[in-house]
Amino acid sequence: MRTERGFDRLVNFSDAVVAIAITLLILPLVETATEVSGKPIDELLVEDGPRLLVFVISFAVIGRFWLAHHGMFEKIVDYNRATLWINLLWLLTIVFLPFPTELIAVSGHDDPTTTALYVGTMAATSLTAVWQQFEFVRHPELQAEAVRGTLRMAPSLIMAGMMLVVLVLVVLFPSGGLFWLFVLLLSTPLQIIEKRMHARRTAVVPGSEA
Amino acid sequence: MRTERGFDRLVNFSDAVVAIAITLLILPLVETATEVSGKPIDELLVEDGPRLLVFVISFAVIGRFWLAHHGMFEKIVDYNRATLWINLLWLLTIVFLPFPTELIAVSGHDDPTTTALYVGTMAATSLTAVWQQFEFVRHPELQAEAVRGTLRMAPSLIMAGMMLVVLVLVVLFPSGGLFWLFVLLLSTPLQIIEKRMHARRTAVVPGSEA
Amino acid sequence: MRTERGFDRLVNFSDAVVAIAITLLILPLVETATEVSGKPIDELLVEDGPRLLVFVISFAVIGRFWLAHHGMFEKIVDYNRATLWINLLWLLTIVFLPFPTELIAVSGHDDPTTTALYVGTMAATSLTAVWQQFEFVRHPELQAEAVRGTLRMAPSLIMAGMMLVVLVLVVLFPSGGLFWLFVLLLSTPLQIIEKRMHARRTAVVPGSEA
Amino acid sequence: MRTERGFDRLVNFSDAVVAIAITLLILPLVETATEVSGKPIDELLVEDGPRLLVFVISFAVIGRFWLAHHGMFEKIVDYNRATLWINLLWLLTIVFLPFPTELIAVSGHDDPTTTALYVGTMAATSLTAVWQQFEFVRHPELQAEAVRGTLRMAPSLIMAGMMLVVLVLVVLFPSGGLFWLFVLLLSTPLQIIEKRMHARRTAVVPGSEA
Repeated sequence: MRTERGFDRLVNFSDAVVAIAITLLILPLVETATEVSGKPIDELLVEDGPRLLVFVISFAVIGRFWLAHHGMFEKIVDYNRATLWINLLWLLTIVFLPFPTELIAVSGHDDPTTTALYVGTMAATSLTAVWQQFEFVRHPELQAEAVRGTLRMAPSLIMAGMMLVVLVLVVLFPSGGLFWLFVLLLSTPLQIIEKRMHARRTAVVPGSEA
Repeated sequence: MRTERGFDRLVNFSDAVVAIAITLLILPLVETATEVSGKPIDELLVEDGPRLLVFVISFAVIGRFWLAHHGMFEKIVDYNRATLWINLLWLLTIVFLPFPTELIAVSGHDDPTTTALYVGTMAATSLTAVWQQFEFVRHPELQAEAVRGTLRMAPSLIMAGMMLVVLVLVVLFPSGGLFWLFVLLLSTPLQIIEKRMHARRTAVVPGSEA
Repeated sequence: MRTERGFDRLVNFSDAVVAIAITLLILPLVETATEVSGKPIDELLVEDGPRLLVFVISFAVIGRFWLAHHGMFEKIVDYNRATLWINLLWLLTIVFLPFPTELIAVSGHDDPTTTALYVGTMAATSLTAVWQQFEFVRHPELQAEAVRGTLRMAPSLIMAGMMLVVLVLVVLFPSGGLFWLFVLLLSTPLQIIEKRMHARRTAVVPGSEA
Repeated sequence: MRTERGFDRLVNFSDAVVAIAITLLILPLVETATEVSGKPIDELLVEDGPRLLVFVISFAVIGRFWLAHHGMFEKIVDYNRATLWINLLWLLTIVFLPFPTELIAVSGHDDPTTTALYVGTMAATSLTAVWQQFEFVRHPELQAEAVRGTLRMAPSLIMAGMMLVVLVLVVLFPSGGLFWLFVLLLSTPLQIIEKRMHARRTAVVPGSEA
C-alpha cells in the first residue's frame, strides 16, 4: 500500500539526512577551534583557510544536490519499492561526503587519491540521481499529471557527465586540485542549450522550467 | 485527544531520529581523517577498510529498518499511548546502534562479544518492531480502512526470527564475523513464500504488496 | 500574521531539535569506543556500565518530555509570540541536557553538584512546560475547539512539583544518586488521582484522556 | 514546476538545518565534560562559565534568526529559483556560527578578531535575510493573498543595520566584548516605532502584526 503520507516521508527523510550531513561539515572546524587554545586567532584563521574553503565547497555541493533532488521530486507524486532503495543509495553518498571533505581539509587538495575520492563521491551521487530519474521516467504513474510523459533524462545525464569529466581531470592533472570543480559551472548553460535544442526538435514544449 | 497532526508528529519524530542516527555513522570516519594528518591517504584508506565496511553495513541496516517502519506505518492512520512508548523503545535501539558499530570499527568483527552486541542490538530493533506490529494488529481502529483486519504478524516475525538466527550464528561461529548477516538476505524470499502460502490458504488477498 | 503552516513549523522545529538532542546522547559512548582500541571489549562494557545507564535514563527523560510536549500540543491549534519564545526556552533546556548527562557519565552520580545540575535541568524543562501550558490556558483562542476552556494546569504542575521534590532529594541525600528519579514514577498515578478528583468535583468531564 | 510540497520542503529543510546547528552548540561543552575526568565539578563549572555564556548567547541568536525566518515566511506561499539559493546562503551563515562560537568559548571575547568574526557571521545572516525579503517584496506573486503588496523592507533593514552597528562597536571598542550585543535589544522598539510612523504616513494599515 502506498499513501501520500508515505511519499511525504520519503521526501522528509531525505531532507532530514541532507540537512544533517550539510550541518556536520562544520564539526571538524569547530574541533580545530577547540584544540588550538593558545594560538592567536589570526594565525589560526590563516591556517584554517583551506578547511574553510573545502567547507564552503562541500556545503555548496550538497546544497546543489539537494536543489536537484528538490527539482526532480517537484514533478513526482508517488514512489515504488525501487525508488525507495535508490533514494537510500543516494543518501549514502551524501552522508559519506563529510569523510573525503575532512581528508582534503587535513591533507590539502593536491593529492590525486584524496581529490579523486572527493570528486568520485560526488560522481556517485550524480549517477544515483540519474538512476532515480531513470526509474521515474520509466514509470509515468509516479509522475505528476501535468508533466506525465514529458520527463527526460538529458538534464541529469549532463550533470553526471560533467562530474565524470571533472573526475578524469583531477586524476590526470592533480595540480589543478579542486579548481577543476569550476568546470561544473558549465552544466547549467549546457542544460539550457540542450533544452532549447530539444524544444526546437519537438516544436511544442509543455511548461517544464524547474 | 488524538489528532492527525499528533500522528504525523510521531512519524516525523521517528524519521528525524533515524535520519540523525544514520548520518552520525560517518562521524568516527571523519575523526580518523582528522587524526592521521601525516599518513599517506592510500595507506589510511586501506587501514580504514574495515571501518568503511561496517559503516556501509550499519547504514544499510538502519536504512532497512527505516523501510520496514515506513512500510508498517503505510497501513496505520492513528496511534495510542502504548504505540508512542513502543516507538520510543524502537528509536532507542536505533540510536544505540552507532555504539556497537564503532566497537566493531575499532576492534574488528571476529570478537564474539562485540559482534553479539552489534547483532543483538539489531535483534532488539526487530523485536520492538514485532511488538509495535502486534499492538497495531490488536487495535484495528488504528489501521487504515482499506486494510482493516488484514494486518498480520508473519512478516515482522520472519524478520525478527532471522535476526535471532544470525545472533546465534555469530556467537557459535565467531569466525564468520559479520558475514553471517548475509543470512538476512533470505528474509525477503521467506516473506514472499509465506505470503503466497497465506494467500493460497485464504484464497482471496486484498491488495497488500509493498 | 499566523498561518497553520507557521504552527506546523513551531511543532516540527521542536521535534527536530528534540530528535537531535536525544540522538546526540550516544556520541560520548561512541567516543569511548574509539579511544580504547587495545582493551578487551568485555572490560570496556563493564567500565562503560554507568555511561550506558545514564544514556538510557537521559533518553527516557527526553523521550518523556517529548511525549508531554506532544500531548500538550494535541489540544492546541494556534500560537502567539509568547509561546514561540517559551518554546525556544523549553528547547534550550532540552539541548542542554547532554552536558550534565556527560558530567554524570564521567564522574558518577554520587556527586551532589553534578546530580543537582542534571535534575535541575530537568526541573527547568518541567517549569518551562508549566509556563507554556499556562500561556495556552490563558488564551482559549489557541486551543482546539473540542477542548476550548477545559485545559488545566494540574497535570503539568504535578510533573514539575515531582521534579522539584527529586531535586531536593538528590541535594539532601546525594548517596541515593539518580535512583531518586524513580520517585518520578509516582507522577502518572498522581495525575490520574487528581484527574478523578477533578472529575468528581465537576461531575461532567469532556473527553480529555491522553 | 513549483508545487506546495516544494515550498514546504524549502521551509522544512531550513527548519531541520537550523535545528541541527542550534543543537550542535552543546557538543563542545559535552567534550570539555568528557576530558576533565579528574577535576572537581564545581571547578569545572566555574571554568566553563564563559563557554556556558556563549552557548546561551549563540542559542538565543540562532533562535532569534529562526523566529525572523518563521515570521517572514508566514506571509509567503511560493518560491522561485533565486529564493532557493538565497535561503541556502542564509543556512550557510547559520551552519557556520558554531565555529566562531567555539573560538570565543576557547579564547574569550576580548579579542577583536574573534568577536568580529562572530558578530560578522550574524551580520551576514541578517544581510542574507534582507536579500531574501527583497526578493519577496519584488515578487508579489510569492506573497500570501492577504498581504500581497504590503510587504516592506524596513523591519529587516533595521535588524541588519543594528547588527552592523554592533559589528563596528566590537571592532572599535573590543573591551566591551559580547556585551555590545545588548544593543540589539533596541531593534524591536525601533521596529515598532518605524511601524507606527509608517502607519501614520499611510493612514490605513492592513493587519500586519507579526
